[in-house]
Amino acid sequence: MVVNTQIIFSKVPTGDPVIGQDITVKESEFDLDTPLNDGDFIVKNLVLSVDPYIRVRMFDASIKSDTPPHTLNEPITGETIKLIIKSKSSLYPEQSYVYGLGSYEEYTKLNDQVAKASGVVVRNDPKTTGIPLSNYVGILGLPGLTAYVGLYKIGEIKKGETIYVSSASGAVGQVAGQIAKAQGLRVIGSAGSDKKVAYLKEIGFDGAFNYKTEDTDAKLRELCPNGIDVYYEVSFEAFYKRLPVSLNSLVPMLEIVLTHLNKFGRIICCGMVSQYNLTTPEKVGNLMNIVTKRIKFQGFVVFDHTDLEPQFLADVTQMILDKKIKYQETHANGIEKTPQALLDILHGRNFGKQVVDVASL
Amino acid sequence: MVVNTQIIFSKVPTGDPVIGQDITVKESEFDLDTPLNDGDFIVKNLVLSVDPYIRVRMFDASIKSDTPPHTLNEPITGETIKLIIKSKSSLYPEQSYVYGLGSYEEYTKLNDQVAKASGVVVRNDPKTTGIPLSNYVGILGLPGLTAYVGLYKIGEIKKGETIYVSSASGAVGQVAGQIAKAQGLRVIGSAGSDKKVAYLKEIGFDGAFNYKTEDTDAKLRELCPNGIDVYYEVSFEAFYKRLPVSLNSLVPMLEIVLTHLNKFGRIICCGMVSQYNLTTPEKVGNLMNIVTKRIKFQGFVVFDHTDLEPQFLADVTQMILDKKIKYQETHANGIEKTPQALLDILHGRNFGKQVVDVASL
Repeated sequence: MVVNTQIIFSKVPTGDPVIGQDITVKESEFDLDTPLNDGDFIVKNLVLSVDPYIRVRMFDASIKSDTPPHTLNEPITGETIKLIIKSKSSLYPEQSYVYGLGSYEEYTKLNDQVAKASGVVVRNDPKTTGIPLSNYVGILGLPGLTAYVGLYKIGEIKKGETIYVSSASGAVGQVAGQIAKAQGLRVIGSAGSDKKVAYLKEIGFDGAFNYKTEDTDAKLRELCPNGIDVYYEVSFEAFYKRLPVSLNSLVPMLEIVLTHLNKFGRIICCGMVSQYNLTTPEKVGNLMNIVTKRIKFQGFVVFDHTDLEPQFLADVTQMILDKKIKYQETHANGIEKTPQALLDILHGRNFGKQVVDVASL
Repeated sequence: MVVNTQIIFSKVPTGDPVIGQDITVKESEFDLDTPLNDGDFIVKNLVLSVDPYIRVRMFDASIKSDTPPHTLNEPITGETIKLIIKSKSSLYPEQSYVYGLGSYEEYTKLNDQVAKASGVVVRNDPKTTGIPLSNYVGILGLPGLTAYVGLYKIGEIKKGETIYVSSASGAVGQVAGQIAKAQGLRVIGSAGSDKKVAYLKEIGFDGAFNYKTEDTDAKLRELCPNGIDVYYEVSFEAFYKRLPVSLNSLVPMLEIVLTHLNKFGRIICCGMVSQYNLTTPEKVGNLMNIVTKRIKFQGFVVFDHTDLEPQFLADVTQMILDKKIKYQETHANGIEKTPQALLDILHGRNFGKQVVDVASL
């Protein structure tokens, strides 16, 4: 028997999840010698991803949704990299890494049919690339794929255009900005602290500003003298009811950007899950620009575009190996830090992609 | 010499144009025996189109715009069908009809190079089709082309889908609804009077309601039990500052429709010109649906899509000849009625497409 620390969804929160009430750390036991049937395997959690959509999925199961909520009194789930430590499955052999939606606990017994159906894949690239495991839930995981799909499929970016990325130092934004730069666009970003803004300039953004302390309209006029062709609205990610993050400036930002967009401009809005509590009190003005400037304002959910994943992985892995892209991460150490890390990202206290290191090899 | 009644843009209005002040009827003289140089020709106005964008173009020339305003103290311009009564141009021969942007006056002397550059085309189809001339500034003119472009290029309509058309009995909406119906969609429309609603049912809409007297949300739930796939937002047409038309319900309508749209829904927003006074006080909520439902919300201006015009003319002319499409028009008789007709459409007092019969053959 080993200790199996789990992060449990224990109650539907109102507003911020309360640690110890809505989200709890539980120490269970796990039998590493549990008998395995054909197809069974045991995984050890190495790295887990902390994303806004984990909070989003803490809703009541009676609410109709494309994406199911976490199960009450069970571990929450999200993107993880795990190591297969025992296996009676040919699909998931021992000592392989697996990537995908997994339980936030140290050990899990899985069955290959169930794992396959839920999209868990063997991803042994890290063994040969030498790229840190944490990158595989960030720049090479859903956030990176989100950036990639948004730029190419929705934004239809073209060399010489100007792109503006909000939340530009975040898990998605920093990838979007750097890929756009590599494609020959002028890239402008905003973030919520001077430290984040300095980082954006360091990784090659042509301009960046602190949207909390500077005048967005004036900065966009200064930094985008030829207007904006593509607006990557990463921030919508965090838009859901009852979560008191300080997002007051986000909807006005869209309103402001609408006045800076060029004719035939595109607005990319991404979401990593399709369930948010739908009603938001925020209303957006200046929408008439959508007609006068022939704007395309399009939302997407990354799971609809996994056909791009092989190309994305090939492209971005190569960029990392060639040191043509950087990726800022914040690491929490130990699975029990997960609830606090979640609160941190909901309040923008992290810097870059938030991950939790659960175990080393 | 003949009398040449002209509709003059005499002052930039605030709010509704005041007849006799902002828009005036002037009796000039025209010399039908005026000498013509090579390339010159004289046209007699037969039918003119009255559209919201005529009011839109009554702005000050100092305002930057894609589409120029009317010229002060000159006749306003818009879509017309005119007859060439004298010509020294091989491009524009005598007794041909011409269609395009023209001066709102009874007689005009033109030069073929200028006419060609401004998109005036010979359109002699009415001589063989027997279709009323007025149709050529409506169902077969820009409003019809707008409907066609919106459905096919922006809306990407597919058989079996549900489309909801607002301002459905108007110049654009009634064409959009009937073409969509012919393509095998379920078609729902709304309009501002019971008479207009009855007309929508008569021309084959699967459902229609009076948005002024009925609950839009409840009616959409009832009439679109499988949700809405495409929303044709014709009403944005009339959205511009300082015009006190009763459009209070339009922005909320978009908000309501957002909650009825299906996954991968499309919102088509059309404009016939690209200049509106940009700031509107109206703000729209429920935009988060654009992400969660992967919605494409796209504006367009018909002038960018004239490549579709030949196909459009062929398709819709055939539909008219086969009596598979109807088109409601309101006719004013005499060019001097133009200012009042403009006020009527700005207040929704007309029914269908508003035209002015200037002269018979």
